[in-house]
Amino acid sequence: MTAAAPIAIFDSGVGGLTVARELRRALANEEIIYLGDTARVPYGPKSAATVKRFGGECVEFLLHFRPKLVIIACNTASATALEDLDQIVDVPLLGVIEPGARAALGASNLRRIGVIGTRATITSGAYPRAVAALDKGATVFSRACPLFVPMVEEGRTKGPVVKAVAQEYLTPLLEQEIDTLILGCTHYPVLKSVMAEVVGAGVTLIDSAETMATAAKELLAARGEGRPESAETPKQHFYVTDVIDEFERVGRIIWPDMTGRIERVEIGRAALR
Amino acid sequence: MTAAAPIAIFDSGVGGLTVARELRRALANEEIIYLGDTARVPYGPKSAATVKRFGGECVEFLLHFRPKLVIIACNTASATALEDLDQIVDVPLLGVIEPGARAALGASNLRRIGVIGTRATITSGAYPRAVAALDKGATVFSRACPLFVPMVEEGRTKGPVVKAVAQEYLTPLLEQEIDTLILGCTHYPVLKSVMAEVVGAGVTLIDSAETMATAAKELLAARGEGRPESAETPKQHFYVTDVIDEFERVGRIIWPDMTGRIERVEIGRAALR
Repeated sequence: MTAAAPIAIFDSGVGGLTVARELRRALANEEIIYLGDTARVPYGPKSAATVKRFGGECVEFLLHFRPKLVIIACNTASATALEDLDQIVDVPLLGVIEPGARAALGASNLRRIGVIGTRATITSGAYPRAVAALDKGATVFSRACPLFVPMVEEGRTKGPVVKAVAQEYLTPLLEQEIDTLILGCTHYPVLKSVMAEVVGAGVTLIDSAETMATAAKELLAARGEGRPESAETPKQHFYVTDVIDEFERVGRIIWPDMTGRIERVEIGRAALR
Repeated sequence: MTAAAPIAIFDSGVGGLTVARELRRALANEEIIYLGDTARVPYGPKSAATVKRFGGECVEFLLHFRPKLVIIACNTASATALEDLDQIVDVPLLGVIEPGARAALGASNLRRIGVIGTRATITSGAYPRAVAALDKGATVFSRACPLFVPMVEEGRTKGPVVKAVAQEYLTPLLEQEIDTLILGCTHYPVLKSVMAEVVGAGVTLIDSAETMATAAKELLAARGEGRPESAETPKQHFYVTDVIDEFERVGRIIWPDMTGRIERVEIGRAALR
Protein backbone atom coordinates (compact mmCIF):
# COMPACT_ATOMS: atom_id res chain seq x y z
CA MET A 1 0.00 0.00 0.00
CA THR A 2 1.36 3.39 -0.90
CA ALA A 3 1.61 6.33 1.49
CA ALA A 4 -0.12 8.43 -1.18
CA ALA A 5 -3.32 6.35 -0.90
CA PRO A 6 -6.33 8.05 0.65
CA ILE A 7 -7.93 7.45 4.03
CA ALA A 8 -11.53 6.27 3.68
CA ILE A 9 -14.14 7.19 6.25
CA PHE A 10 -17.48 5.47 6.44
CA ASP A 11 -20.45 6.74 8.40
CA SER A 12 -24.17 6.04 8.39
CA GLY A 13 -24.74 9.66 7.50
CA VAL A 14 -23.43 13.10 8.22
CA GLY A 15 -22.28 12.57 11.84
CA GLY A 16 -18.94 11.15 10.74
CA LEU A 17 -17.99 14.63 9.57
CA THR A 18 -16.96 15.28 13.19
CA VAL A 19 -14.32 12.58 12.60
CA ALA A 20 -13.35 13.90 9.14
CA ARG A 21 -12.91 17.38 10.63
CA GLU A 22 -10.60 16.12 13.40
CA LEU A 23 -8.71 13.97 10.90
CA ARG A 24 -8.15 17.01 8.70
CA ARG A 25 -6.71 18.85 11.73
CA ALA A 26 -4.53 15.98 12.91
CA LEU A 27 -3.36 14.73 9.49
CA ALA A 28 -3.23 17.78 7.27
CA ASN A 29 -1.51 16.00 4.35
CA GLU A 30 -3.89 13.09 3.90
CA GLU A 31 -6.49 12.66 1.18
CA ILE A 32 -9.91 11.85 2.57
CA ILE A 33 -12.70 9.87 0.90
CA TYR A 34 -15.91 9.99 2.91
CA LEU A 35 -19.05 7.94 2.42
CA GLY A 36 -22.25 8.81 4.29
CA ASP A 37 -25.13 6.35 3.79
CA THR A 38 -27.68 9.15 4.04
CA ALA A 39 -30.42 7.24 2.20
CA ARG A 40 -30.54 4.60 4.95
CA VAL A 41 -29.50 6.66 7.96
CA PRO A 42 -29.94 6.26 10.93
CA TYR A 43 -28.36 2.92 11.78
CA GLY A 44 -28.80 3.55 15.52
CA PRO A 45 -32.32 2.17 15.98
CA LYS A 46 -31.77 -0.80 13.62
CA SER A 47 -30.74 -4.40 14.20
CA ALA A 48 -27.18 -5.71 14.14
CA ALA A 49 -28.01 -7.88 11.09
CA THR A 50 -29.20 -4.91 9.06
CA VAL A 51 -26.29 -2.71 10.16
CA LYS A 52 -23.85 -5.46 9.14
CA ARG A 53 -25.44 -5.72 5.70
CA PHE A 54 -25.45 -1.96 5.10
CA GLY A 55 -21.93 -1.58 6.51
CA GLY A 56 -20.60 -4.32 4.25
CA GLU A 57 -22.09 -2.70 1.16
CA CYS A 58 -20.60 0.67 2.09
CA VAL A 59 -17.10 -0.59 2.88
CA GLU A 60 -17.15 -2.53 -0.41
CA PHE A 61 -17.80 0.77 -2.21
CA LEU A 62 -14.93 2.50 -0.40
CA LEU A 63 -12.45 -0.26 -1.26
CA HIS A 64 -12.69 0.78 -4.92
CA PHE A 65 -10.57 3.80 -4.00
CA ARG A 66 -7.78 1.50 -2.73
CA PRO A 67 -7.48 3.29 0.61
CA LYS A 68 -4.59 2.60 2.98
CA LEU A 69 -6.94 2.76 5.97
CA VAL A 70 -10.71 2.52 6.42
CA ILE A 71 -12.21 4.32 9.41
CA ILE A 72 -15.61 3.19 10.61
CA ALA A 73 -16.66 6.52 12.08
CA CYS A 74 -20.16 5.34 12.91
CA ASN A 75 -20.32 4.07 16.48
CA THR A 76 -23.27 1.83 15.67
CA ALA A 77 -21.44 0.16 12.78
CA SER A 78 -18.21 -0.07 14.81
CA ALA A 79 -20.11 -1.69 17.67
CA THR A 80 -21.95 -4.26 15.57
CA ALA A 81 -20.11 -4.84 12.28
CA LEU A 82 -16.39 -4.18 12.79
CA GLU A 83 -15.35 -7.75 13.60
CA ASP A 84 -17.23 -9.21 10.63
CA LEU A 85 -15.85 -6.56 8.28
CA ASP A 86 -12.33 -7.04 9.55
CA GLN A 87 -12.46 -10.67 8.42
CA ILE A 88 -13.37 -9.87 4.83
CA VAL A 89 -11.28 -6.75 4.23
CA ASP A 90 -7.49 -6.78 3.77
CA VAL A 91 -6.93 -3.10 4.55
CA PRO A 92 -6.52 -1.90 8.16
CA LEU A 93 -9.93 -1.04 9.63
CA LEU A 94 -10.27 1.32 12.57
CA GLY A 95 -13.48 1.51 14.58
CA VAL A 96 -14.28 4.17 17.17
CA ILE A 97 -14.97 1.88 20.11
CA GLU A 98 -11.51 0.71 21.15
CA PRO A 99 -9.82 4.15 20.90
CA GLY A 100 -12.71 5.67 22.88
CA ALA A 101 -12.44 3.04 25.61
CA ARG A 102 -8.67 3.54 25.82
CA ALA A 103 -8.98 7.33 26.07
CA ALA A 104 -11.66 7.02 28.76
CA LEU A 105 -9.47 4.75 30.88
CA GLY A 106 -6.61 7.22 30.46
CA ALA A 107 -8.80 10.05 31.75
CA SER A 108 -10.64 8.29 34.58
CA ASN A 109 -9.28 8.25 38.13
CA LEU A 110 -12.27 6.56 39.75
CA ARG A 111 -12.52 3.95 36.95
CA ARG A 112 -16.25 4.73 36.81
CA ILE A 113 -17.02 5.51 33.18
CA GLY A 114 -20.28 6.56 31.56
CA VAL A 115 -21.08 5.92 27.91
CA ILE A 116 -23.91 7.35 25.85
CA GLY A 117 -24.89 6.38 22.32
CA THR A 118 -27.67 5.20 20.05
CA ARG A 119 -29.91 2.32 21.06
CA ALA A 120 -27.96 -0.12 18.84
CA THR A 121 -24.55 0.94 20.20
CA ILE A 122 -25.70 0.66 23.81
CA THR A 123 -27.54 -2.65 23.25
CA SER A 124 -24.43 -4.14 21.62
CA GLY A 125 -22.48 -3.74 24.87
CA ALA A 126 -19.40 -2.94 22.78
CA TYR A 127 -18.04 -0.18 25.04
CA PRO A 128 -18.29 -2.15 28.32
CA ARG A 129 -16.58 -5.06 26.55
CA ALA A 130 -13.80 -2.86 25.16
CA VAL A 131 -13.21 -1.26 28.57
CA ALA A 132 -13.19 -4.66 30.33
CA ALA A 133 -10.66 -6.00 27.81
CA LEU A 134 -8.29 -3.21 28.85
CA ASP A 135 -9.09 -2.97 32.57
CA LYS A 136 -11.24 -5.51 34.37
CA GLY A 137 -11.52 -3.28 37.45
CA ALA A 138 -13.32 -0.43 35.68
CA THR A 139 -17.11 -0.11 35.73
CA VAL A 140 -19.12 1.19 32.79
CA PHE A 141 -22.59 2.74 33.06
CA SER A 142 -24.48 2.97 29.75
CA ARG A 143 -27.42 4.99 28.50
CA ALA A 144 -29.09 5.21 25.09
CA CYS A 145 -29.98 8.78 24.07
CA PRO A 146 -32.23 8.47 20.98
CA LEU A 147 -33.15 12.16 20.72
CA PHE A 148 -29.64 13.60 20.48
CA VAL A 149 -29.11 12.68 16.79
CA PRO A 150 -32.40 14.16 15.51
CA MET A 151 -31.74 17.26 17.61
CA VAL A 152 -28.33 17.83 16.03
CA GLU A 153 -29.72 17.18 12.54
CA GLU A 154 -32.42 19.76 13.21
CA GLY A 155 -29.69 22.27 14.13
CA ARG A 156 -30.86 22.30 17.74
CA THR A 157 -27.52 22.33 19.54
CA LYS A 158 -28.39 24.50 22.54
CA GLY A 159 -31.38 25.99 24.34
CA PRO A 160 -33.76 24.85 27.08
CA VAL A 161 -35.14 21.74 25.31
CA VAL A 162 -31.68 20.32 24.57
CA LYS A 163 -30.59 21.03 28.12
CA ALA A 164 -33.71 19.40 29.63
CA VAL A 165 -33.22 16.28 27.51
CA ALA A 166 -29.50 16.15 28.33
CA GLN A 167 -30.29 16.45 32.04
CA GLU A 168 -32.80 13.65 31.83
CA TYR A 169 -30.41 11.31 29.99
CA LEU A 170 -27.28 12.13 32.01
CA THR A 171 -28.60 12.42 35.58
CA PRO A 172 -28.79 8.63 36.13
CA LEU A 173 -25.14 8.37 35.03
CA LEU A 174 -24.07 11.23 37.31
CA GLU A 175 -25.82 9.48 40.20
CA GLN A 176 -23.41 6.58 39.59
CA GLU A 177 -20.55 9.03 40.28
CA ILE A 178 -18.84 8.64 36.93
CA ASP A 179 -15.81 10.88 36.37
CA THR A 180 -15.54 10.26 32.59
CA LEU A 181 -18.21 10.19 29.91
CA ILE A 182 -17.68 8.68 26.44
CA LEU A 183 -19.68 10.50 23.75
CA GLY A 184 -20.31 7.26 21.89
CA CYS A 185 -21.90 8.67 18.74
CA THR A 186 -20.38 10.85 16.03
CA HIS A 187 -23.14 13.44 16.37
CA TYR A 188 -22.57 14.08 20.05
CA PRO A 189 -19.44 16.28 19.92
CA VAL A 190 -21.73 18.98 18.49
CA LEU A 191 -23.62 18.96 21.81
CA LYS A 192 -20.42 19.03 23.89
CA SER A 193 -20.96 22.45 25.42
CA VAL A 194 -24.46 21.59 26.65
CA MET A 195 -23.23 18.28 28.03
CA ALA A 196 -20.27 19.95 29.76
CA GLU A 197 -22.74 22.30 31.47
CA VAL A 198 -24.90 19.41 32.62
CA VAL A 199 -22.13 17.10 33.87
CA GLY A 200 -19.96 19.85 35.40
CA ALA A 201 -16.19 20.17 35.67
CA GLY A 202 -15.78 16.89 37.58
CA VAL A 203 -16.53 14.75 34.53
CA THR A 204 -14.17 14.49 31.53
CA LEU A 205 -15.90 14.18 28.17
CA ILE A 206 -14.31 11.76 25.69
CA ASP A 207 -14.94 12.94 22.16
CA SER A 208 -14.76 9.94 19.80
CA ALA A 209 -13.89 12.18 16.85
CA GLU A 210 -10.71 13.36 18.58
CA THR A 211 -9.68 9.93 19.85
CA MET A 212 -10.30 8.50 16.38
CA ALA A 213 -8.04 11.06 14.70
CA THR A 214 -5.30 10.33 17.22
CA ALA A 215 -5.64 6.57 16.67
CA ALA A 216 -5.43 7.03 12.89
CA LYS A 217 -2.33 9.20 13.22
CA GLU A 218 -0.62 6.63 15.46
CA LEU A 219 -1.50 3.76 13.16
CA LEU A 220 -0.14 5.49 10.06
CA ALA A 221 3.03 6.51 11.91
CA ALA A 222 3.56 2.93 13.12
CA ARG A 223 3.14 1.60 9.58
CA GLY A 224 5.26 4.37 8.04
CA GLU A 225 2.38 5.25 5.75
CA GLY A 226 1.86 8.93 6.47
CA ARG A 227 1.51 11.00 3.31
CA PRO A 228 4.44 13.39 2.84
CA GLU A 229 3.74 17.10 2.62
CA SER A 230 3.17 18.33 -0.93
CA ALA A 231 2.58 21.64 -2.63
CA GLU A 232 -1.04 20.73 -3.40
CA THR A 233 -3.78 20.87 -0.81
CA PRO A 234 -4.83 17.24 -0.25
CA LYS A 235 -8.21 16.36 -1.71
CA GLN A 236 -11.40 15.71 0.21
CA HIS A 237 -14.17 13.90 -1.56
CA PHE A 238 -17.57 13.15 -0.10
CA TYR A 239 -20.05 10.54 -1.32
CA VAL A 240 -23.62 10.32 -0.11
CA THR A 241 -26.43 7.91 -0.94
CA ASP A 242 -29.18 10.52 -0.72
CA VAL A 243 -29.26 14.05 -2.13
CA ILE A 244 -26.41 16.46 -1.62
CA ASP A 245 -28.23 19.52 -0.29
CA GLU A 246 -29.43 17.94 2.95
CA PHE A 247 -25.92 16.58 3.58
CA GLU A 248 -24.52 20.05 3.03
CA ARG A 249 -27.14 21.67 5.29
CA VAL A 250 -26.37 19.41 8.26
CA GLY A 251 -22.69 19.28 7.29
CA ARG A 252 -22.41 23.03 7.86
CA ILE A 253 -23.84 22.63 11.36
CA ILE A 254 -21.18 20.04 12.16
CA TRP A 255 -18.20 21.36 10.16
CA PRO A 256 -18.71 25.00 9.21
CA ASP A 257 -15.61 25.26 6.99
CA MET A 258 -16.02 21.94 5.16
CA THR A 259 -14.67 22.00 1.59
CA GLY A 260 -14.43 19.43 -1.20
CA ARG A 261 -16.62 17.83 -3.82
CA ILE A 262 -19.85 16.06 -2.80
CA GLU A 263 -21.30 13.39 -5.08
CA ARG A 264 -24.31 11.15 -4.92
CA VAL A 265 -23.97 7.39 -5.38
CA GLU A 266 -26.43 4.52 -5.21
CA ILE A 267 -25.68 1.67 -2.84
CA GLY A 268 -28.04 -1.16 -1.97
CA ARG A 269 -30.29 -0.77 -4.98
CA ALA A 270 -32.88 -3.54 -5.14
CA ALA A 271 -32.06 -6.55 -7.29
CA LEU A 272 -35.80 -6.84 -8.00
CA ARG A 273 -36.14 -4.84 -11.18
CA MET B 1 -60.66 -8.03 -8.31
CA THR B 2 -62.42 -10.07 -5.69
CA ALA B 3 -64.01 -8.68 -2.52
CA ALA B 4 -62.08 -11.32 -0.57
CA ALA B 5 -58.71 -9.82 -1.57
CA PRO B 6 -56.73 -8.12 1.19
CA ILE B 7 -56.07 -4.44 1.75
CA ALA B 8 -52.36 -3.66 1.62
CA ILE B 9 -50.87 -0.90 3.74
CA PHE B 10 -47.42 0.49 3.12
CA ASP B 11 -45.51 2.67 5.54
CA SER B 12 -41.89 3.67 5.94
CA GLY B 13 -41.91 2.01 9.35
CA VAL B 14 -44.11 1.49 12.33
CA GLY B 15 -46.10 4.75 12.21
CA GLY B 16 -48.58 3.36 9.69
CA LEU B 17 -49.91 1.13 12.47
CA THR B 18 -52.07 4.11 13.49
CA VAL B 19 -53.73 3.68 10.06
CA ALA B 20 -53.94 -0.13 10.36
CA ARG B 21 -55.56 0.25 13.79
CA GLU B 22 -58.22 2.65 12.48
CA LEU B 23 -58.79 0.45 9.45
CA ARG B 24 -59.36 -2.54 11.70
CA ARG B 25 -61.97 -0.49 13.60
CA ALA B 26 -63.70 0.88 10.51
CA LEU B 27 -63.54 -2.27 8.34
CA ALA B 28 -63.71 -5.19 10.74
CA ASN B 29 -64.08 -7.85 8.00
CA GLU B 30 -61.07 -6.97 5.87
CA GLU B 31 -57.78 -8.81 5.68
CA ILE B 32 -54.81 -6.52 6.16
CA ILE B 33 -51.29 -6.93 4.79
CA TYR B 34 -48.90 -4.35 6.22
CA LEU B 35 -45.37 -3.57 5.10
CA GLY B 36 -43.11 -1.33 7.20
CA ASP B 37 -39.73 -0.50 5.62
CA THR B 38 -38.07 -0.43 9.03
CA ALA B 39 -34.56 -1.04 7.67
CA ARG B 40 -34.64 2.26 5.78
CA VAL B 41 -36.94 4.31 7.99
CA PRO B 42 -37.29 7.29 8.33
CA TYR B 43 -38.25 8.62 4.91
CA GLY B 44 -39.07 12.07 6.36
CA PRO B 45 -35.61 13.65 6.17
CA LYS B 46 -34.78 12.11 2.76
CA SER B 47 -35.08 13.37 -0.80
CA ALA B 48 -38.09 12.85 -3.07
CA ALA B 49 -35.95 10.76 -5.46
CA THR B 50 -34.92 8.33 -2.72
CA VAL B 51 -38.44 8.13 -1.28
CA LYS B 52 -39.80 7.34 -4.78
CA ARG B 53 -37.27 4.55 -5.23
CA PHE B 54 -37.94 3.00 -1.81
CA GLY B 55 -41.72 3.42 -2.19
CA GLY B 56 -41.68 1.73 -5.60
CA GLU B 57 -39.77 -1.26 -4.25
CA CYS B 58 -42.19 -1.62 -1.33
CA VAL B 59 -45.39 -1.33 -3.37
CA GLU B 60 -43.98 -3.88 -5.82
CA PHE B 61 -43.60 -6.30 -2.88
CA LEU B 62 -47.19 -5.70 -1.74
CA LEU B 63 -48.61 -6.35 -5.21
CA HIS B 64 -47.55 -10.02 -4.87
CA PHE B 65 -50.50 -10.40 -2.48
CA ARG B 66 -52.95 -9.23 -5.18
CA PRO B 67 -54.59 -6.65 -2.95
CA LYS B 68 -57.81 -4.88 -3.96
CA LEU B 69 -56.49 -1.60 -2.55
CA VAL B 70 -53.06 -0.27 -1.60
CA ILE B 71 -52.92 2.39 1.10
CA ILE B 72 -49.85 4.58 1.25
CA ALA B 73 -50.04 5.31 4.97
CA CYS B 74 -46.75 7.18 5.03
CA ASN B 75 -47.35 10.90 4.57
CA THR B 76 -43.86 11.40 3.17
CA ALA B 77 -44.35 8.71 0.51
CA SER B 78 -47.88 9.96 -0.24
CA ALA B 79 -46.57 13.49 -0.65
CA THR B 80 -43.67 12.63 -2.93
CA ALA B 81 -44.31 9.28 -4.64
CA LEU B 82 -48.07 8.74 -5.02
CA GLU B 83 -48.46 10.23 -8.49
CA ASP B 84 -45.55 8.24 -9.90
CA LEU B 85 -46.75 5.03 -8.27
CA ASP B 86 -50.28 5.56 -9.50
CA GLN B 87 -49.02 5.49 -13.08
CA ILE B 88 -47.33 2.11 -12.77
CA VAL B 89 -49.82 0.25 -10.57
CA ASP B 90 -53.20 -1.03 -11.77
CA VAL B 91 -54.78 -1.39 -8.31
CA PRO B 92 -56.45 1.59 -6.61
CA LEU B 93 -53.90 3.51 -4.53
CA LEU B 94 -54.95 5.71 -1.65
CA GLY B 95 -52.59 8.27 -0.17
CA VAL B 96 -53.17 10.16 3.07
CA ILE B 97 -52.87 13.68 1.70
CA GLU B 98 -56.13 14.19 -0.19
CA PRO B 99 -58.40 12.66 2.50
CA GLY B 100 -56.62 14.77 5.14
CA ALA B 101 -57.05 17.96 3.11
CA ARG B 102 -60.74 17.18 2.55
CA ALA B 103 -61.38 16.49 6.25
CA ALA B 104 -59.58 19.69 7.24
CA LEU B 105 -61.72 21.80 4.90
CA GLY B 106 -64.82 20.11 6.31
CA ALA B 107 -63.79 21.07 9.85
CA SER B 108 -62.49 24.60 9.26
CA ASN B 109 -64.75 27.64 9.54
CA LEU B 110 -62.05 30.27 9.12
CA ARG B 111 -60.42 28.38 6.20
CA ARG B 112 -57.11 28.89 7.97
CA ILE B 113 -55.51 25.46 8.22
CA GLY B 114 -52.25 24.40 9.83
CA VAL B 115 -50.33 21.33 8.75
CA ILE B 116 -47.42 19.65 10.51
CA GLY B 117 -45.28 16.81 9.19
CA THR B 118 -41.77 15.61 8.45
CA ARG B 119 -39.34 17.82 6.59
CA ALA B 120 -39.96 15.94 3.30
CA THR B 121 -43.76 16.18 3.58
CA ILE B 122 -43.67 19.89 4.35
CA THR B 123 -41.04 20.65 1.68
CA SER B 124 -43.12 18.83 -0.93
CA GLY B 125 -45.97 21.33 -0.49
CA ALA B 126 -48.42 18.46 -1.02
CA TYR B 127 -50.95 19.54 1.61
CA PRO B 128 -51.22 23.19 0.48
CA ARG B 129 -51.63 21.91 -3.10
CA ALA B 130 -54.33 19.40 -2.10
CA VAL B 131 -56.22 22.06 -0.11
CA ALA B 132 -55.97 24.59 -2.97
CA ALA B 133 -57.29 22.01 -5.43
CA LEU B 134 -60.43 21.71 -3.29
CA ASP B 135 -60.81 25.33 -2.12
CA LYS B 136 -58.75 28.17 -3.55
CA GLY B 137 -59.87 30.53 -0.77
CA ALA B 138 -58.33 28.53 2.07
CA THR B 139 -54.90 29.34 3.47
CA VAL B 140 -52.47 26.70 4.70
CA PHE B 141 -49.66 27.31 7.20
CA SER B 142 -47.02 24.57 7.33
CA ARG B 143 -44.39 23.53 9.80
CA ALA B 144 -41.89 20.65 9.84
CA CYS B 145 -41.58 18.96 13.26
CA PRO B 146 -38.54 16.66 13.02
CA LEU B 147 -38.44 15.65 16.70
CA PHE B 148 -41.96 14.24 16.99
CA VAL B 149 -41.19 10.92 15.26
CA PRO B 150 -38.09 10.05 17.34
CA MET B 151 -40.00 11.08 20.47
CA VAL B 152 -42.86 8.68 19.72
CA GLU B 153 -40.42 5.89 18.84
CA GLU B 154 -38.67 6.46 22.16
CA GLY B 155 -42.04 6.03 23.90
CA ARG B 156 -41.99 9.66 24.98
CA THR B 157 -45.63 10.59 24.38
CA LYS B 158 -46.17 13.04 27.24
CA GLY B 159 -44.24 15.02 29.86
CA PRO B 160 -42.54 18.41 30.00
CA VAL B 161 -40.06 17.89 27.14
CA VAL B 162 -42.75 16.79 24.67
CA LYS B 163 -44.94 19.68 25.71
CA ALA B 164 -42.11 22.23 25.37
CA VAL B 165 -41.25 20.95 21.89
CA ALA B 166 -44.93 20.92 20.85
CA GLN B 167 -45.32 24.49 22.09
CA GLU B 168 -42.27 25.60 20.14
CA TYR B 169 -43.45 23.94 16.91
CA LEU B 170 -47.12 24.92 17.17
CA THR B 171 -46.98 28.48 18.50
CA PRO B 172 -46.12 30.05 15.11
CA LEU B 173 -49.14 28.27 13.61
CA LEU B 174 -51.43 29.41 16.42
CA GLU B 175 -50.22 32.97 15.83
CA GLN B 176 -51.64 32.62 12.31
CA GLU B 177 -55.04 31.99 13.91
CA ILE B 178 -55.61 28.56 12.41
CA ASP B 179 -58.77 26.76 13.53
CA THR B 180 -57.81 23.33 12.15
CA LEU B 181 -54.53 21.41 12.31
CA ILE B 182 -53.70 18.45 10.09
CA LEU B 183 -51.47 15.89 11.84
CA GLY B 184 -49.61 15.14 8.62
CA CYS B 185 -47.56 12.18 9.78
CA THR B 186 -48.69 8.72 10.87
CA HIS B 187 -46.80 8.97 14.16
CA TYR B 188 -48.53 12.13 15.32
CA PRO B 189 -51.90 10.71 16.46
CA VAL B 190 -49.96 9.18 19.36
CA LEU B 191 -49.16 12.73 20.53
CA LYS B 192 -52.74 13.93 20.08
CA SER B 193 -53.47 14.59 23.74
CA VAL B 194 -50.35 16.77 24.20
CA MET B 195 -51.15 18.66 21.00
CA ALA B 196 -54.77 19.18 22.05
CA GLU B 197 -53.51 20.71 25.30
CA VAL B 198 -51.16 23.04 23.43
CA VAL B 199 -53.57 24.21 20.70
CA GLY B 200 -56.64 24.43 22.96
CA ALA B 201 -60.31 23.74 22.21
CA GLY B 202 -60.49 26.31 19.39
CA VAL B 203 -58.44 24.18 17.01
CA THR B 204 -59.72 20.91 15.51
CA LEU B 205 -57.08 18.21 15.07
CA ILE B 206 -57.31 16.18 11.85
CA ASP B 207 -55.96 12.69 12.46
CA SER B 208 -54.80 11.23 9.14
CA ALA B 209 -55.26 7.67 10.41
CA GLU B 210 -58.98 8.26 10.94
CA THR B 211 -59.53 10.13 7.67
CA MET B 212 -57.64 7.40 5.83
CA ALA B 213 -59.83 4.64 7.25
CA THR B 214 -62.95 6.59 6.27
CA ALA B 215 -61.63 7.12 2.75
CA ALA B 216 -60.84 3.42 2.37
CA LYS B 217 -64.30 2.47 3.58
CA GLU B 218 -65.97 4.85 1.12
CA LEU B 219 -63.84 3.65 -1.77
CA LEU B 220 -64.62 -0.03 -1.15
CA ALA B 221 -68.33 0.74 -0.73
CA ALA B 222 -68.36 2.70 -4.00
CA ARG B 223 -66.67 -0.19 -5.83
CA GLY B 224 -68.83 -2.83 -4.13
CA GLU B 225 -65.68 -4.55 -2.94
CA GLY B 226 -66.25 -4.73 0.81
CA ARG B 227 -65.47 -8.16 2.23
CA PRO B 228 -68.61 -9.91 3.54
CA GLU B 229 -68.72 -10.97 7.18
CA SER B 230 -67.45 -14.48 7.80
CA ALA B 231 -67.13 -16.83 10.74
CA GLU B 232 -63.36 -16.49 10.77
CA THR B 233 -61.58 -13.48 12.20
CA PRO B 234 -59.95 -11.74 9.21
CA LYS B 235 -56.18 -12.11 9.06
CA GLN B 236 -53.63 -9.43 9.76
CA HIS B 237 -50.12 -9.98 8.50
CA PHE B 238 -47.20 -7.64 9.06
CA TYR B 239 -43.96 -7.56 7.11
CA VAL B 240 -40.93 -5.55 8.16
CA THR B 241 -37.53 -5.07 6.55
CA ASP B 242 -35.60 -4.92 9.84
CA VAL B 243 -35.93 -7.15 12.89
CA ILE B 244 -39.27 -7.94 14.42
CA ASP B 245 -38.65 -7.11 18.07
CA GLU B 246 -38.10 -3.39 17.57
CA PHE B 247 -41.25 -3.21 15.41
CA GLU B 248 -43.18 -4.96 18.16
CA ARG B 249 -41.74 -2.68 20.86
CA VAL B 250 -42.80 0.53 19.10
CA GLY B 251 -45.93 -1.18 17.74
CA ARG B 252 -47.19 -1.72 21.28
CA ILE B 253 -46.78 2.01 22.00
CA ILE B 254 -48.90 2.85 18.96
CA TRP B 255 -51.38 -0.04 18.94
CA PRO B 256 -51.48 -1.77 22.33
CA ASP B 257 -53.79 -4.62 21.22
CA MET B 258 -52.14 -5.37 17.89
CA THR B 259 -52.39 -9.05 16.86
CA GLY B 260 -51.22 -11.02 13.83
CA ARG B 261 -48.08 -12.57 12.45
CA ILE B 262 -44.97 -10.42 11.92
CA GLU B 263 -42.36 -11.53 9.40
CA ARG B 264 -39.10 -10.12 8.21
CA VAL B 265 -38.44 -9.65 4.48
CA GLU B 266 -35.54 -8.17 2.54
CA ILE B 267 -36.26 -5.37 0.11
CA GLY B 268 -33.66 -3.26 -1.64
CA ARG B 269 -30.80 -5.71 -1.21
CA ALA B 270 -27.71 -4.60 -3.12
CA ALA B 271 -27.20 -6.10 -6.56
CA LEU B 272 -23.45 -5.86 -5.92
CA ARG B 273 -22.69 -9.25 -4.46
